[in-house]
Amino acid sequence: MKIVIIGGVAGGASAAARARRLSEDSEIVVIERGEAPSFANCGLPYYVGGEIQSRDKLLVAPIERLHGRYRLDVRVRSEVTKIDRANKTVDVRDLRDGTTYQESYDKLIVSTGAAPFRPDLDGIDHPRVMELRDLKDADAMHTAAVGQSGKAVVVGAGFIGIEVAENLVRRGWDVTVVELGDQILPPWDKEMVNGLHDHLRGHGVTLQLNDSADRFQDRDGGVTVHLKSGGSIDASFVVLAIGVRPESRLAADAGIECGPRGGIVTNAQMQTNDPDVYAVGDVAQVTDVVTGLPTQIPLAGPANRQGRIAADHIFGRASTFRGTQGTAVVGVFDRTAAMTGQSEKLLKRAGTSYQKIYVHPTDHAGYYPGAQGMTLKLLFDPDSGLILGAQAVGGAGVDKRIDVIATAIQAGWTVEDLEEVELCYAPQYGHAKDPVNMAGFVASGVVRGDQPVVHVESIADAMPVEEFRIDVRTPGEFAKGHLPDAVNVPLEELRDRLDEIPRDRFVIAYCQVGLRGYMASRILMQRGYDVKNLSGGYKTWIQHHGEQVPVA
Amino acid sequence: MKIVIIGGVAGGASAAARARRLSEDSEIVVIERGEAPSFANCGLPYYVGGEIQSRDKLLVAPIERLHGRYRLDVRVRSEVTKIDRANKTVDVRDLRDGTTYQESYDKLIVSTGAAPFRPDLDGIDHPRVMELRDLKDADAMHTAAVGQSGKAVVVGAGFIGIEVAENLVRRGWDVTVVELGDQILPPWDKEMVNGLHDHLRGHGVTLQLNDSADRFQDRDGGVTVHLKSGGSIDASFVVLAIGVRPESRLAADAGIECGPRGGIVTNAQMQTNDPDVYAVGDVAQVTDVVTGLPTQIPLAGPANRQGRIAADHIFGRASTFRGTQGTAVVGVFDRTAAMTGQSEKLLKRAGTSYQKIYVHPTDHAGYYPGAQGMTLKLLFDPDSGLILGAQAVGGAGVDKRIDVIATAIQAGWTVEDLEEVELCYAPQYGHAKDPVNMAGFVASGVVRGDQPVVHVESIADAMPVEEFRIDVRTPGEFAKGHLPDAVNVPLEELRDRLDEIPRDRFVIAYCQVGLRGYMASRILMQRGYDVKNLSGGYKTWIQHHGEQVPVA
Ligand SMILES: Cc1cc2nc3c(=O)[nH]c(=O)nc-3n(C[C@H](O)[C@H](O)[C@H](O)COP(=O)(O)OP(=O)(O)OC[C@H]3O[C@@H](n4cnc5c(N)ncnc54)[C@H](O)[C@@H]3O)c2cc1C
Ligand SMILES: Cc1cc2nc3c(=O)[nH]c(=O)nc-3n(C[C@H](O)[C@H](O)[C@H](O)COP(=O)(O)OP(=O)(O)OC[C@H]3O[C@@H](n4cnc5c(N)ncnc54)[C@H](O)[C@@H]3O)c2cc1C
Ligand SMILES: CC(C)(COP(=O)(O)OP(=O)(O)OC[C@H]1O[C@@H](n2cnc3c(N)ncnc32)[C@H](O)[C@@H]1OP(=O)(O)O)[C@@H](O)C(=O)NCCC(=O)NCCS
Ligand SMILES: CC(C)(COP(=O)(O)OP(=O)(O)OC[C@H]1O[C@@H](n2cnc3c(N)ncnc32)[C@H](O)[C@@H]1OP(=O)(O)O)[C@@H](O)C(=O)NCCC(=O)NCCS
Repeated sequence: MKIVIIGGVAGGASAAARARRLSEDSEIVVIERGEAPSFANCGLPYYVGGEIQSRDKLLVAPIERLHGRYRLDVRVRSEVTKIDRANKTVDVRDLRDGTTYQESYDKLIVSTGAAPFRPDLDGIDHPRVMELRDLKDADAMHTAAVGQSGKAVVVGAGFIGIEVAENLVRRGWDVTVVELGDQILPPWDKEMVNGLHDHLRGHGVTLQLNDSADRFQDRDGGVTVHLKSGGSIDASFVVLAIGVRPESRLAADAGIECGPRGGIVTNAQMQTNDPDVYAVGDVAQVTDVVTGLPTQIPLAGPANRQGRIAADHIFGRASTFRGTQGTAVVGVFDRTAAMTGQSEKLLKRAGTSYQKIYVHPTDHAGYYPGAQGMTLKLLFDPDSGLILGAQAVGGAGVDKRIDVIATAIQAGWTVEDLEEVELCYAPQYGHAKDPVNMAGFVASGVVRGDQPVVHVESIADAMPVEEFRIDVRTPGEFAKGHLPDAVNVPLEELRDRLDEIPRDRFVIAYCQVGLRGYMASRILMQRGYDVKNLSGGYKTWIQHHGEQVPVA
Repeated sequence: MKIVIIGGVAGGASAAARARRLSEDSEIVVIERGEAPSFANCGLPYYVGGEIQSRDKLLVAPIERLHGRYRLDVRVRSEVTKIDRANKTVDVRDLRDGTTYQESYDKLIVSTGAAPFRPDLDGIDHPRVMELRDLKDADAMHTAAVGQSGKAVVVGAGFIGIEVAENLVRRGWDVTVVELGDQILPPWDKEMVNGLHDHLRGHGVTLQLNDSADRFQDRDGGVTVHLKSGGSIDASFVVLAIGVRPESRLAADAGIECGPRGGIVTNAQMQTNDPDVYAVGDVAQVTDVVTGLPTQIPLAGPANRQGRIAADHIFGRASTFRGTQGTAVVGVFDRTAAMTGQSEKLLKRAGTSYQKIYVHPTDHAGYYPGAQGMTLKLLFDPDSGLILGAQAVGGAGVDKRIDVIATAIQAGWTVEDLEEVELCYAPQYGHAKDPVNMAGFVASGVVRGDQPVVHVESIADAMPVEEFRIDVRTPGEFAKGHLPDAVNVPLEELRDRLDEIPRDRFVIAYCQVGLRGYMASRILMQRGYDVKNLSGGYKTWIQHHGEQVPVA
């Protein structure tokens, strides 16, 4: 058996390593365009920022190890320029001397990844309009960033853009992030990351949202970025981070089927429409675990696992890729944003019916020092309670809760299952009712009809307010800010002041985070009121409004 | 509806709060022997140690809040002395004045918890032979420990004993922990906690394993602890922490069925054999999620959820308790031990067939600074791969992995499901192949027959060694210590030195953690050798032998 693998990093190297473990006798050829296989793409921003000091650390499995341990025939600085499926060969160009040769295969694995998107803008080819995908990019950015300072512009506020911005700040740069959308981290829902906007600003990052780079102009070796909004920024260098596109041209040219967004269409064994050709990693189109629809999610975990599965299938193991659910995490200075499954915006766009809840727990018991807050959002089917997605933003423990819910999603669980999950508890690690249980309690209450909820978006900003709003927090909390037109009836007094609440109007109860509002709504429901709790309370209200909190 | 709840802390207060949310009209009476309801039992050791400074923080829901918000009739310093099921009443003694009265109920919830076990030993009633269950115990220990120093003895190395020991060290005490068994933290398997023994010693704790307190003797107000081994320790005070016993006497006296270990027998709605009487929390016997057999696991998470379920059932909600799986975590100075499901020793005792694997990953990518090591052990059915249990010990990220596996156990997953779980990955949070995936890969390899493993226990210490042992690490690693009679053939050289490996002997391959040993075994298997990998490698070997590593 002779296997040729195009691309020797996350998906490709994993496939190669697994193939060798399964078969000592195979010939395994890895063809990699770059100078090194198997490097840590995900570490590149932190190398630029100095958190990772030694460049060698980025070489996860150096070529010598791939030769020595795995007996892989790894050819770096070599590019596949053509796939000939009829003859089962690929054309390879040695980038060091420009020579080309053919290599035959029995099975071909395409793991060419995805390239940073470079739109056709004036001046985009300026040498200081950089991108960050591989070692050479990292070297260039390192050279540009270290030991100097001034202004840098990052175009795009996805996770790579945000990581680069943070790391340039760490090197002393004055960074502006230009983003077309009205929020950073587009996969997350806006209200979840609104609070991170100020957090970034607090660390010195200038956010230029709802704007984009229109053209780039040389200025004494640096770059002037002209913005769509009309302004411009003089920068020493620019980093383009506005998403990636599958490097599928090679495959498409060979008649391998690609999806509408360019990803190579694969089955659950990572085979393409040619059963001898597999595609794995960022270049592949896969199935979304939640929707069952085609998707492309360029992340390292799926790439690694897909590579392993392709090798498994070649050697008769019954592995199946279950699809990708978009579990992702990103550090934003000392905060963390994580998510799994569908976002609300995707559900909305697809017209899927969904319900959602917010909770604002701490990572561990409040009575133990050092507890850090987070906001956890759970999206689910309003009838069955099937979990559709979750997002969390905050300090410690965010990744843990999303990991548990990611597991629950893959298990096909409902929110009622989350009520019963039995997680680690000691005061420095969690809660007797873990945030995951708590989200399960709240969502299950909504599904069962015990906790009707209303959401910030559905509360009109217009005055006069139609429904009756009661704020069940303390007068002190109320005084610091509240919903327009709200009446303050602290929870403790509610039962004795029912006569102040009109029976002929729809009532919205709310508190700071949702718990007291829920209790108030339970009291009122049982007294015959038409009442709903504002999910997530005033905190979610603030998070939704971001910078534009209406003054109460 | 009138509900009487005996015991107003984890299970009882949760039941009461939930009952109120479900029913405004019920009369809910909570009878609590202690001075305060709803306190943080789990925080007591950290209050003694000063990590939690304010005693008020321990009062999670002060009585005023339970009155004000929940309209609960909470009666503290009141003890139920009798349950009369025929008349549906309980006898209550007011501990402040000794008066007694009867209280009727429609539904009774017994949440009396579990009391520290006090064996019948000479001198055990000495006032300085303390225990730690409630606020008054914590106050007494605080008084004894703060602002003084000297010698203290903790009897019992369960999680409460270890937490108390750590917190007394924090206060400057010279602490000896006396433990009957040959390891601390009895729920964990020994090799998993062996490394913590030295860790505790490194923090100044004296461990007196395989020993027990035989009798206690007054010595100028302090206590001399006479040990079974013959020695004795003069201590200022002693803390008894040798387990707890369900406080089920009251219920048993009323004809409520209890199990062999004293727990009140309950169904999945937390009902006892009297459908109007529920039992929740530490006093209840429940079903083990993994074995389906009766069990008693005194932990706060299950107590809280069971209380909620009892209230749900009273008010017609279809909640069901799925059983307890013993998910637990404990901090040991700056290390963490966590577990879920069955331990190996329990599986062995029950005669259940099982297989196991060890991995030694880091919490996050090794190329990103600050990665901390852990050992993760996975127990599973050798044929189906069904997950039976998991344990992890190490630094950061231990609780996260056990939480994911706990979820997987409740989902009825196999180790092959763990291969595919999609978890958060960025270099400071995890791995592209998370430790959970990795454990899944290894275990699945074992189930599929791709990775036959052998375990340290089955390798005889006797010489000469029967099988052929190859150590595939580097000569440098080998020189620092290796298995008796092992031959060093570095992995990279193995394919070229096959003639040094006898074909007629069973071969054990091993490395430092298991990965290279596995790769060596793959090479040898495919060349026709009868070979197994030593799971967990030399590191697991060391962990098994603890202090008595045989010299190579
Ligand atoms: C800066 C950065 C940070 C990231 N951070 C994270 C993170 O925190 N978490 C996460 O999950 N993911 C992260 N990712 C994404 C992750 O690195 C990718 O999802 C993953 O590497 C995809 O693996 P792959 O094998 O598909 O592609 P790659 O790892 O990109 O490998 C593809 C390789 O194929 C080679 N190649 C392409 N065409 C050819 C050809 N014709 N001939 C020969 N070779 C070719 C390329 O040179 C490239 O080296 C990050 C990516 C970047 C760039
Ligand atoms: C020091 C310590 C540390 C702990 N740490 C952890 C941890 O980190 N993680 C974890 O999960 N668990 C921990 N636990 C265990 C956890 O606290 C218990 O599992 C949990 O509190 C059990 O809840 P419960 O309602 O069954 O009993 P409890 O919370 O003990 O409440 C029972 C109450 O009933 C009262 N009572 C008993 N009999 C009567 C009567 N006849 N009349 C009136 N009142 C009565 C008692 O006074 C008591 O307050 C710890 C326990 C202790 C003591
Ligand atoms: C304090 C105590 C009385 C609280 O009981 P509780 O009210 O059931 O628990 P919480 O305050 O966490 O609230 C949970 C409820 O609020 C709801 N809730 C929580 N956050 C919410 C939010 N943001 N929006 C809406 N509802 C929310 C949950 O759905 C749940 O209600 P439900 O059970 O009706 O579904 C009880 O847990 C206790 O006594 N704890 C201390 C003792 C103890 O546990 N000791 C051992 C550990 S140290
Ligand atoms: C380095 C690289 C080549 C390794 O690939 P790999 O060998 O498949 O992965 P690992 O080294 O983690 O080893 C996993 C294998 O070892 C086995 N293993 C791991 N620990 C083990 C242990 N303690 N005992 C026995 N086996 C073990 C696993 O079962 C698995 O084998 P299997 O797939 O045959 O079941 C590849 O992951 C890579 O190139 N990574 C860097 C690029 C990258 O991922 N970039 C994006 C993220 S920054």
